[in-house]
Amino acid sequence: MSDSSHNFFSNSGRVLRLSTFPFVPSLSPPKDETSLNAKLLVQAGFIRKLQTGVYSFLPLGLRVLNKIEEIVRSEMRTLGSFEVLLPALHPREIWEQTGRWSTVDVLYKMKGHGDRDLCLGPTHEEVITPLVGEFCQTYKKLPVSVFQIQTKFRNELRPRSGLLRCREFRMKDLYSFHTSHEDLESFYEKVTASYFSIFSKIGLKDNVFLTYASGGVFSEFSHEFQALCDNGEDTIYVDFEKKIAINDEIFAQVKDNPQFKNCNFQQVRAIEVGNIFKLGDKFSSSFNYLYVKSDSQQAPVLMGCYGIGTSRLVGALAEIYSDQHGLNFPVSVSPAELIIVPLIQNETVLNDIVSLLIDSHLDVIVDDRDVGPGHKFKDADLMGIPFRLTVGNRTISNGVLDVKSRATGATKDITVRELKDLVIAGKFSKWLEDLC
Amino acid sequence: MSDSSHNFFSNSGRVLRLSTFPFVPSLSPPKDETSLNAKLLVQAGFIRKLQTGVYSFLPLGLRVLNKIEEIVRSEMRTLGSFEVLLPALHPREIWEQTGRWSTVDVLYKMKGHGDRDLCLGPTHEEVITPLVGEFCQTYKKLPVSVFQIQTKFRNELRPRSGLLRCREFRMKDLYSFHTSHEDLESFYEKVTASYFSIFSKIGLKDNVFLTYASGGVFSEFSHEFQALCDNGEDTIYVDFEKKIAINDEIFAQVKDNPQFKNCNFQQVRAIEVGNIFKLGDKFSSSFNYLYVKSDSQQAPVLMGCYGIGTSRLVGALAEIYSDQHGLNFPVSVSPAELIIVPLIQNETVLNDIVSLLIDSHLDVIVDDRDVGPGHKFKDADLMGIPFRLTVGNRTISNGVLDVKSRATGATKDITVRELKDLVIAGKFSKWLEDLC
Repeated sequence: MSDSSHNFFSNSGRVLRLSTFPFVPSLSPPKDETSLNAKLLVQAGFIRKLQTGVYSFLPLGLRVLNKIEEIVRSEMRTLGSFEVLLPALHPREIWEQTGRWSTVDVLYKMKGHGDRDLCLGPTHEEVITPLVGEFCQTYKKLPVSVFQIQTKFRNELRPRSGLLRCREFRMKDLYSFHTSHEDLESFYEKVTASYFSIFSKIGLKDNVFLTYASGGVFSEFSHEFQALCDNGEDTIYVDFEKKIAINDEIFAQVKDNPQFKNCNFQQVRAIEVGNIFKLGDKFSSSFNYLYVKSDSQQAPVLMGCYGIGTSRLVGALAEIYSDQHGLNFPVSVSPAELIIVPLIQNETVLNDIVSLLIDSHLDVIVDDRDVGPGHKFKDADLMGIPFRLTVGNRTISNGVLDVKSRATGATKDITVRELKDLVIAGKFSKWLEDLC
Repeated sequence: MSDSSHNFFSNSGRVLRLSTFPFVPSLSPPKDETSLNAKLLVQAGFIRKLQTGVYSFLPLGLRVLNKIEEIVRSEMRTLGSFEVLLPALHPREIWEQTGRWSTVDVLYKMKGHGDRDLCLGPTHEEVITPLVGEFCQTYKKLPVSVFQIQTKFRNELRPRSGLLRCREFRMKDLYSFHTSHEDLESFYEKVTASYFSIFSKIGLKDNVFLTYASGGVFSEFSHEFQALCDNGEDTIYVDFEKKIAINDEIFAQVKDNPQFKNCNFQQVRAIEVGNIFKLGDKFSSSFNYLYVKSDSQQAPVLMGCYGIGTSRLVGALAEIYSDQHGLNFPVSVSPAELIIVPLIQNETVLNDIVSLLIDSHLDVIVDDRDVGPGHKFKDADLMGIPFRLTVGNRTISNGVLDVKSRATGATKDITVRELKDLVIAGKFSKWLEDLC
């Protein structure tokens, strides 16, 4: 399900034994968190707060983040986009050039040696525009798109909602460069489809609505991808039948537009999980990024930008996929697909099953801690591992294992022999899916 | 050779076609770089300078960085260490607690909302110590080790030498936590071996010397890993026969120590590519991190820290593995193993060969640009792709391809048929290796 790059557990197999793992769930939720996602993610041992709006990712949380980012990365490659890694330390000059040094109020500003003004990048138009401008100066080199997945910074007045609004966060930003509005529009639509594919792959299947938002100078609207969630910090208006949504900020202004005629909007809460924006020549003009056309004339390049907050998605998934027992992540982004809970002390039987599963290409957690079954079941639910496999007395006597789905509560027996056959045939993942 | 996580080229195969790739080599070296590594890496299209000591990684450079970091990550897992991702934005309070807010002169300091003092992490002892302290409070939970691979920041007075001394850089830091000096010592030796394995895997085979350096309070020495390089910024003294080295900073003080008796030291230049340090209880004491011993008494945890500058390694490899024609990277960290240079216009023949190579699991660059053969050969050498496969008239007439090693200049013919057989048998990588 996930490639070997995600195997942070060990090199000898995708197996994490909790007996030797320090970052296990806590017995009680944190006292200093108010949002559901932070409460759950901290208690489950996925993250820790360093200060308001700034979190450390522990191994289980980092694994979720990595899986999300790998899904995003794969879709960006499918778009034909090239990955770069851009600096966080920006010189004041590039932000002056776009006039944003004084207008963007979330810039962390500081002095470097030589009394030079610096800021931390909350976004990277100021870096990517002249960079691409150096390489793509003629129509023959366009269109092109470039993306980055990295840490960004915003000096938010009021960070809140755990991972949903942070001062330091992980983000994918894609920037595209075009010679015509038609080409920009066409790519914009491809990215829209790509985003729905990403949200579907990470488990936000029917939760996400393309939402009209304020557009800026170059287009009437930008678009947000809003995931429905009762605890979401955004209000949107959705026509569920027509699958049209409008952000609260512009709803009053635009609801009577002809395109929204006959819509039946309902007010709902949602979390913004992505946004896409036509920049036109705003940034290329600032940096005097002109390209040479086929008729040898020059014209400004047209740009689009497309963001997805990958660490915010970890928080959004925790808000949307959780219940009174804890996290309940989709299989594709859970830190492991399967947790083995041994209720008996029989190393041989346990090791046989673990060895079997190493060949399954699943990520497996083994709760071999010296704690009671209740504690193990509680933690398995809290971490939200999609499938739980219990090894007990029935395993010894009859070779029977009990498998339970975290999402549906469905249970099913399987014998060690059947498990072995399924793993060898490469059909165990499918068997688990069918359990749900 | 590398896993699919490195395939940034496309999802449909590990093939990069230069005709659609913007970040190709420049015709001439940059005027604003003085170091060899920055001149080469910028001209080859691997990196770009944003400001002094701050670089963007372009796709080819990012790929080298990713390959190095994946080798490092794999070795850290082999040590049984767990990966975390820690914040860059640190509150002043944790740096006051260790007394380093005022003593570390490379801290980038800034104000956040609420007039709070912040700094950017140049290292992470202040974050990791209390974090591990929360989870590992008894001897049963120790030893443990945790690592991070991420961006760090140092307000260097004089950044220099391209990627060798940056203000923003990528770094792996490993931190270990122990209950006894013996256990710390034992792990310290394991890390030493692990580091040599890393340097060997990235191609720095016999270049790296474990070098005595100043130790601090808790041990007489720390150790640096110094890679011999004429352009290196460090001076070390090496006994090549005994494989002992001493850093310039302490050479005068310690050269008469009994342990260095009969050594025959030569002064050489080198690049520091790693360092390891016994911290003792310096940081655990600052954070009052005590663990409960088996006799129920409390004692401070003993720590070690172990760094490798992964972006610096990109620079070090460029300094060490290059010649008058450009970069000459080891196969394991080159952006691609093979570059195909078509000298003729025959899409069918070219596509057949590319299709073949997709099955080889090699990373392949195809120089299908509309430029002359001389330009293509020059760029292939500049990028330092280890093997060059020329498709020309002989390919059409006799099915013969010309393969050339960048490192040795050795050439060998291979027919398309032979190539196909080797790829199917999984032996083409070996065939290439044998060419050197």
